[in-house]
Amino acid sequence: MAEKPQHQPLLYFKHQKGDLLINQLPISQLIHRVGQTPFFAYDRSVIEAKVSELRQAFGPDISLHYAIKSNPMPALVDYITPLVDGLDVASGKELTVALNSGINPEKVSFAGPAKQVNELLMAIASGITINIESETELKRIISLCENHQYKANIALRINPNFDLKSSGMKMAGGPQQFGIDAEQVDTIAELLKHPSLNVNGLHIFTGSQNLQAHAIIEAHKHILELAIQIAEQLQLKLQHLNIGGGLGIPYFPGETSIELEPIAANLKRLLAEYQTQLNNTEIILELGRFLVGESGVFVSKVVDVKQSRDHTFIITDGGLHHHLAASGNFGQVIRKNYPVKIANKMDQNDSIKADIVGPLCTPLDILAKNMTFPDVEIGDLVAVFQSGAYGYTASPKDFLSHPYPLEVLI
Amino acid sequence: MAEKPQHQPLLYFKHQKGDLLINQLPISQLIHRVGQTPFFAYDRSVIEAKVSELRQAFGPDISLHYAIKSNPMPALVDYITPLVDGLDVASGKELTVALNSGINPEKVSFAGPAKQVNELLMAIASGITINIESETELKRIISLCENHQYKANIALRINPNFDLKSSGMKMAGGPQQFGIDAEQVDTIAELLKHPSLNVNGLHIFTGSQNLQAHAIIEAHKHILELAIQIAEQLQLKLQHLNIGGGLGIPYFPGETSIELEPIAANLKRLLAEYQTQLNNTEIILELGRFLVGESGVFVSKVVDVKQSRDHTFIITDGGLHHHLAASGNFGQVIRKNYPVKIANKMDQNDSIKADIVGPLCTPLDILAKNMTFPDVEIGDLVAVFQSGAYGYTASPKDFLSHPYPLEVLI
Repeated sequence: MAEKPQHQPLLYFKHQKGDLLINQLPISQLIHRVGQTPFFAYDRSVIEAKVSELRQAFGPDISLHYAIKSNPMPALVDYITPLVDGLDVASGKELTVALNSGINPEKVSFAGPAKQVNELLMAIASGITINIESETELKRIISLCENHQYKANIALRINPNFDLKSSGMKMAGGPQQFGIDAEQVDTIAELLKHPSLNVNGLHIFTGSQNLQAHAIIEAHKHILELAIQIAEQLQLKLQHLNIGGGLGIPYFPGETSIELEPIAANLKRLLAEYQTQLNNTEIILELGRFLVGESGVFVSKVVDVKQSRDHTFIITDGGLHHHLAASGNFGQVIRKNYPVKIANKMDQNDSIKADIVGPLCTPLDILAKNMTFPDVEIGDLVAVFQSGAYGYTASPKDFLSHPYPLEVLI
Repeated sequence: MAEKPQHQPLLYFKHQKGDLLINQLPISQLIHRVGQTPFFAYDRSVIEAKVSELRQAFGPDISLHYAIKSNPMPALVDYITPLVDGLDVASGKELTVALNSGINPEKVSFAGPAKQVNELLMAIASGITINIESETELKRIISLCENHQYKANIALRINPNFDLKSSGMKMAGGPQQFGIDAEQVDTIAELLKHPSLNVNGLHIFTGSQNLQAHAIIEAHKHILELAIQIAEQLQLKLQHLNIGGGLGIPYFPGETSIELEPIAANLKRLLAEYQTQLNNTEIILELGRFLVGESGVFVSKVVDVKQSRDHTFIITDGGLHHHLAASGNFGQVIRKNYPVKIANKMDQNDSIKADIVGPLCTPLDILAKNMTFPDVEIGDLVAVFQSGAYGYTASPKDFLSHPYPLEVLI
């Protein structure tokens, strides 16, 4: 009989006297420091470890950008900014958070298929790079520049004609709302010559949450070839090429961390091959989830433990309204469990099988389904790991009007 | 060849000179009045029509409660309170909204499997009825009453041993985190005799979003029988019996409105049959979605229209962060389209096939997939119907840090 797939063991968290340690702080002390449950705690040492892993694998020739959308908590953005080479934003408010960190605006880029006119003006006035998603957007920028006597830094976002295999989310190949189709770039060639524009790069993003190195390797080859072709076609000097991210993290049973070394080795080989064409081009990896996802733990408290027929329910004060993805309701076809532990009983053996559910009046409100745990009591703390990205901001926090969770950076 | 299922025609909305009318106000005037897009508009006349339909079908012997969780906008709650016989809340904040409407607290009940101690005290001090979900909760209430010299009004929430067939969401039958298993009520019989408690009713809720009258009819029979059995077993005088709601609204192609008449006729017959046992019992239908779901329209503005390969994308300033359920990402296994129209071109014939997508950097951000529309231009208004329940509050509004939509009651 095949063994049931298990969660990959926790790579970044240890425990002491049964207490989960978050950046060396025991969870039982941390909850007093935070003052309430539920909360999201992000561990600085894990973020630093992720940056180190990437630097070690990719070396100094690849730039790392942080995609704020994965976690826009201002303290976290301020912490990560000096560790990386740039920030990517997806809205006017994210741009504000980025600039508040003190970053050089030249290191910031802005993507999004429906940027508002006021957001475009914010971006132009700040001097950041706007990733152009359509001809309409290009014309809006030119018009704003003419009206206000600005010059705009822009990059072209290209929708390539290939996709990223084995990807949690495909964002390229076939028709897309993102970017300009590779075969249509000629239609904007004349507009790009406008004197208000400084066209400084390309952005080719193929997908996200990928755990297969071979798929990323294949995509990188196609991305570089396409970028070189488009740069020649439009006679652009590529100051930078944003090749997207795509590096996933393991969430579910059977998933394991993606191997960085073969991806880095392939990229090094490709850059040597295309040295002539890309000699003065900064190659940028844009990462969100991979940088911060594993740093985060969602902590809630057990309010009730209930036997209903053959089943044990552990009911907590945290649920899908705080952490939609962990509940399995955010675009997932089949619900799977995130790694979940009893954070104050990390040294105890599992002895019960139970569901962990939230406080909402809906059967969708599940944090763990049929998982094994130590003997759980009211007041125990439930930790949902891999919760540093797309947690707090990607959840319907007003659903049933409960108080919001807090966020702390430890 | 079988015809493709269509959306049921709009029952509550008309148009004038191409403009959608929301409570007689043309959409092109409404957007000036609101001052921004996107927004949710709720039409008072539709809510009133829904209450009338229910009163006409069920007559004066059935009470109607509004479940605030479906839409807790304070102005809407204030509007609906005088039209219905009571309110149901699911959190301390919803309780506050309910009491702010000026309602008699005796007409308010509070359900939820993980009520916090401070929420229980709020409920006791307000004099509302608490639907007890577990023995733990019962003990917490008795302890609060003893400490503060209060009496508490409680009802028992029962997890029945049958389920609601054909239901969008089952909340009964088998193990559940909700209520006390029907066969376990004896275990709390002694506790219920505590002098601090006024046990005034039962709450038996089997599921929601059901469009099949026969399924509701079958459930009602079982609910009444079970309520009578438990009342006898625990020697309770049932002042009220909350039989839940379950009445769905049609969202997707092929779905049609549920027939109220057979449900009402069946309930009438059952109440005659059990006249002896239920003579002094108020029978309560608890409805959320059915009362307000059809009153709401989510309105966004077209920012770009884009051709990508063989596909047309209409890109709006509203998306999944405002209306998660309409994007198909809130617990749905297969994405289906809500009814969507171009609100300022209601009199024009469809001439294009397109996707309507939102502003987010994710392919999940879809409001309409492969639907037909009139010729769409930048600045046109997109209306997503059936958006009055589980829209604004059930969406991850901080995702990508865009401004929040507004809510207006018209």
